[in-house]
Amino acid sequence: MGQCCCKKRKDSQELTNVEQAIETVINQFHCYAVQGRKEYLTPNELKELVGQKLPHLGNCVGPLEEKIECLGDPNEARVEFGEYWDIMGDAAKCCQK
Amino acid sequence: MGQCCCKKRKDSQELTNVEQAIETVINQFHCYAVQGRKEYLTPNELKELVGQKLPHLGNCVGPLEEKIECLGDPNEARVEFGEYWDIMGDAAKCCQK
Repeated sequence: MGQCCCKKRKDSQELTNVEQAIETVINQFHCYAVQGRKEYLTPNELKELVGQKLPHLGNCVGPLEEKIECLGDPNEARVEFGEYWDIMGDAAKCCQK
Repeated sequence: MGQCCCKKRKDSQELTNVEQAIETVINQFHCYAVQGRKEYLTPNELKELVGQKLPHLGNCVGPLEEKIECLGDPNEARVEFGEYWDIMGDAAKCCQK
């Protein structure tokens, strides 16, 4: 799960590097949001995404895992795109210093 | 301004695609945050980044420009990394639907 290579919605050649980067982060949400049919992730799916796709942000991921624990039932709670983006932002803030 | 190619802090080959994407978004902040010496962007610098780096998110950028107007003095106000990440998230939310 989550290994699928999501089809890019736009022809990625024209996109700028920042647009491609944003699209990559969006695509991963859609790749892992299986139970939520691309609408939301479960905490377990988010944890899998973070574990597989953010292996080098370990020191930042620690607090992320605590955050994921607080999201509610690992299989039932819903993590919408905005929350997912905020969590990616936590990792980014941690490693941009 | 902002055309500089920021040196990647990590050897990008080992990073996953999501980590590279996050790093790209971080690097752009540092590239454009000239006045704030990588600590913050001015609204003008943010507007330049959005104009140059998010050309295809025009329909999402509209509201972004209004948001940038509300940030305060175009040359004096400070846009910290967290706010910048949130604004990139607005563009992402708009185009991930």
